[in-house]
Amino acid sequence: MGKESNNQKLKIVPLGGLEFIGMNITAFEYDDSIIIVDCGMSFPEYDMYGIDLCVPVLTYLQENLDKVKGFFITHGHEDHIGALPYVLLEVNVPIYATKLTMGLIDHKLEEHGLLETTKRKVVTYGQHINLGCFRVEFIKTNHSIQDAAALAIYSPAGIVVHTGDFKVDYTPVYGDSIDLQRFGELGKKGVLALMSDSTNAERPGSTMSEKTVGKAFEAIFREHQNQRIIVATFASNVDRVQQIINTAYQFGRKVCVEGRSMVNIISIASELGYLSIPANTLVEIDQLKDYPDERTVLITTGSQGEPLAALSRMATGIHRKVKITPNDLIVFSSNPIPGNEKAVSNIINELYRKSAEVIFQDTHVSGHACQEEIKLIYSLVNPKYAIPIHGEFKHRKAAAGVLKELGYDKDHILMLESGDVLAIDETGAEVIDKVPAGTVFVDGLGIGDVGNIVLHDRRHLAENGIVIVVMSMDSASGQIVAGPDMVSRGFIYVRESENLMEEAQEVLNDTVDRIMERNITDWSKIKSEIKDNLGSFLWKKTRRNPMIIPIIMDV
Amino acid sequence: MGKESNNQKLKIVPLGGLEFIGMNITAFEYDDSIIIVDCGMSFPEYDMYGIDLCVPVLTYLQENLDKVKGFFITHGHEDHIGALPYVLLEVNVPIYATKLTMGLIDHKLEEHGLLETTKRKVVTYGQHINLGCFRVEFIKTNHSIQDAAALAIYSPAGIVVHTGDFKVDYTPVYGDSIDLQRFGELGKKGVLALMSDSTNAERPGSTMSEKTVGKAFEAIFREHQNQRIIVATFASNVDRVQQIINTAYQFGRKVCVEGRSMVNIISIASELGYLSIPANTLVEIDQLKDYPDERTVLITTGSQGEPLAALSRMATGIHRKVKITPNDLIVFSSNPIPGNEKAVSNIINELYRKSAEVIFQDTHVSGHACQEEIKLIYSLVNPKYAIPIHGEFKHRKAAAGVLKELGYDKDHILMLESGDVLAIDETGAEVIDKVPAGTVFVDGLGIGDVGNIVLHDRRHLAENGIVIVVMSMDSASGQIVAGPDMVSRGFIYVRESENLMEEAQEVLNDTVDRIMERNITDWSKIKSEIKDNLGSFLWKKTRRNPMIIPIIMDV
Repeated sequence: MGKESNNQKLKIVPLGGLEFIGMNITAFEYDDSIIIVDCGMSFPEYDMYGIDLCVPVLTYLQENLDKVKGFFITHGHEDHIGALPYVLLEVNVPIYATKLTMGLIDHKLEEHGLLETTKRKVVTYGQHINLGCFRVEFIKTNHSIQDAAALAIYSPAGIVVHTGDFKVDYTPVYGDSIDLQRFGELGKKGVLALMSDSTNAERPGSTMSEKTVGKAFEAIFREHQNQRIIVATFASNVDRVQQIINTAYQFGRKVCVEGRSMVNIISIASELGYLSIPANTLVEIDQLKDYPDERTVLITTGSQGEPLAALSRMATGIHRKVKITPNDLIVFSSNPIPGNEKAVSNIINELYRKSAEVIFQDTHVSGHACQEEIKLIYSLVNPKYAIPIHGEFKHRKAAAGVLKELGYDKDHILMLESGDVLAIDETGAEVIDKVPAGTVFVDGLGIGDVGNIVLHDRRHLAENGIVIVVMSMDSASGQIVAGPDMVSRGFIYVRESENLMEEAQEVLNDTVDRIMERNITDWSKIKSEIKDNLGSFLWKKTRRNPMIIPIIMDV
Repeated sequence: MGKESNNQKLKIVPLGGLEFIGMNITAFEYDDSIIIVDCGMSFPEYDMYGIDLCVPVLTYLQENLDKVKGFFITHGHEDHIGALPYVLLEVNVPIYATKLTMGLIDHKLEEHGLLETTKRKVVTYGQHINLGCFRVEFIKTNHSIQDAAALAIYSPAGIVVHTGDFKVDYTPVYGDSIDLQRFGELGKKGVLALMSDSTNAERPGSTMSEKTVGKAFEAIFREHQNQRIIVATFASNVDRVQQIINTAYQFGRKVCVEGRSMVNIISIASELGYLSIPANTLVEIDQLKDYPDERTVLITTGSQGEPLAALSRMATGIHRKVKITPNDLIVFSSNPIPGNEKAVSNIINELYRKSAEVIFQDTHVSGHACQEEIKLIYSLVNPKYAIPIHGEFKHRKAAAGVLKELGYDKDHILMLESGDVLAIDETGAEVIDKVPAGTVFVDGLGIGDVGNIVLHDRRHLAENGIVIVVMSMDSASGQIVAGPDMVSRGFIYVRESENLMEEAQEVLNDTVDRIMERNITDWSKIKSEIKDNLGSFLWKKTRRNPMIIPIIMDV
């Protein structure tokens, strides 16, 4: 297949979100136009010491900067909007999103001082945006945050539907149910490819309606009328918060919101009309003491066991305003995200130690489609090609299994990896190229100035500590005029290991003496002898391998 | 209550295993005698950088060394025997255990060169050991390792029964079922306290028999006759290994065992007669290539996602002998221990990426009693006091809930913490003292030479890296004769941050110039000014807080 023919194909380029869970970003290229769907960040893995967050490598976009027309954002979760402040520094093109999604993006851009310099356009469901060769339609879906959208991307090579994160909720707490009719209509028109959320593809059946959680809260509030109730949940699940507020109001309780991200999102959602709070229901944390415990509800962050979040600080007794008592009921309205199980468990243990009551079940439903919903969306859209996205590899593989059941053959289920350039049209689909894709580390204010070498050093330091050896040398005479001295950190209790450190000093002195005797003047050779000798001595004595940094000063 | 009366009580002192999960060790003191039940280690938490394992603080035993008579070990798992090589260095008294348990202890002591210097006595079920004021009887139980025992501890103040880890298995793979009759007999005699395993106390019902796993393996082997089968499980679950070997033999497959701990335990268990391997079934890993894939089974370590274990090396493609192919079926005969979920998930994703098949269910049962078994053991033993042990606080709390259902009142359910000294006899039970309890870190060959200060430094280094500032000073004249120079590690990509590092050098030079102008000669003052100025400059520019180590050399 010649280059010519590929030019008439649509190119789909996932730049993250497949191996790099959370960092959802996909480019669509046709002719002189590129549009980008979502722009998420991911949280660092446990061994990425000191890293605050991960954002995508942008080589491909930078090399095609003149083609890039805009961002289309499916919903306001961090794994879909979190990298915007970093990516916009390189790729400053307009952002298109629904109202609440844009409210959350605006807040983020404001924090980064990017609000003035970024074009943003709020889109309504059913609206079409023309941009270069593309037309993009926003379609109503349901998810664990309001205003989620699927996108129908019209290109000269055909229509691609991208679900974003979605579930089917026939009885949503706020707004309409997913626009299944439109998915059906598009299917009748003919869809080239469907890129669909695979997060829950291992789970049979259908995801429960968010509304069922409201009933669970009602039962809990009814049964615990004499206790204070603390509910931990995801800050961004505004419908969940709405239901907690509704239940609190029904039982005559005041509601206090605690945790910075929770306060932010609730204020944005209320302002934009996505949350309706009855008058005299919300109280500030300082007012809590004016009401008896059993007349209050706290809604708080920290349901994932995050050590700095409000709930964790309450559980460990270091929260400045809230003290856990035996009269507290803590409700986890959440499931631990994989990797957080232990942290959540630790918090539950702490709450129990303070004799509080804990409820961990029945007040959470997922925001992602299960197998029956995946089958439904594919049956409506009936695409030529299926592209499972979102979720770990095992989830996307499970989605592929569901698709096989629906009759898709292997060649029509496309399992992409980040960086793959998929060329697709009615005549076929194949990965024709691989572009750079991966993570850029953000640490403090630095973007990309911490990479694998720095991380490698941090791991070495973390596991073994450091031993610094300094000495001053008269370069003219080649004589040592001071040192060698040793300073260590993170290696060993020096005071309780005096013998070891004295012996190490002797090894060091001997090494330097021998270097002098041999008239070695090449500093790199001197340093490497010190490293080798001291290193093997310490390994022999301690079975530890501290980083050894010899520093020679020329005086 | 006077001191006199407490002297006639039994003292129960858990030195670990309650807050410090895994580090199971409990002392029993009466008059001039102390006996110790179990001596476990725990694995480090994620933020204990570089620590290999945690062993108990021994102050209480050291202060009462002349009283300590012996160790009684309930079974051979690391969380019950792992600290022995460390504790024996301080407290060298005889060890009593059943045969397989002692086999595993012997192996451990041999590795540490302690076999010759440690008295050990193999005990059979029903046997009683007299030691000081105590008599200890070993009672048959079931667990996920063979030869597990409960202990009946006879003291002048009454009988305490300690279950160890246990479950009720009416149809064990090897040996007898738990000796429920003896528990009943003791109950009729009158038992002061029952200390019982709470690990599964949140789970209703009863734990399934290990034998059910054999049936699951049979079904899997029958269905996958054309694939190689790789089973990952716990090295110490010899019954599990026996069942895999039996099924392999039944289907005419050769068995290869991979992973150091797996090979060790299987060799010990076979030698002692706990494992029967049909002739010509076991093959070495180098012989695998002589058989077609579908005629082989690999039993391997790494079911918890441990990065250095055999399965992880296979999954990531760095195992020297085994390469995963699309013709492989990997069976996880295990559940992830809390905290390991993500690591296990990562391995499954890697296996799927290599197009292997993975089965993650139906081939594991727990080794711990669920609620109905806890009720059974309490109904048989019918103790005056209930002491839930083993498991996190939430599990012990759940056990307390079960005990309340059985009619125990709050005063007769004793929730202990490590270090509590419980004084108990027929007239009452109360915590009368608190002794030091906690963890000692083992790092390489060092026991206790890494503590909180060293760990604090390691965390600082891990998160932020280090900047070393060196200069040489003529102390006679107070003049700087070389430097100040900067060396950094784990802080930033120096090559790509030249401007920043140049500016930092200027800040450093200015600081030193000003120090010279002010004729400051106090080195600690000079160092603290360098730290402050350079630190705040770097924080302002990067929002990072590297460890700054100023070193001054006197030339």
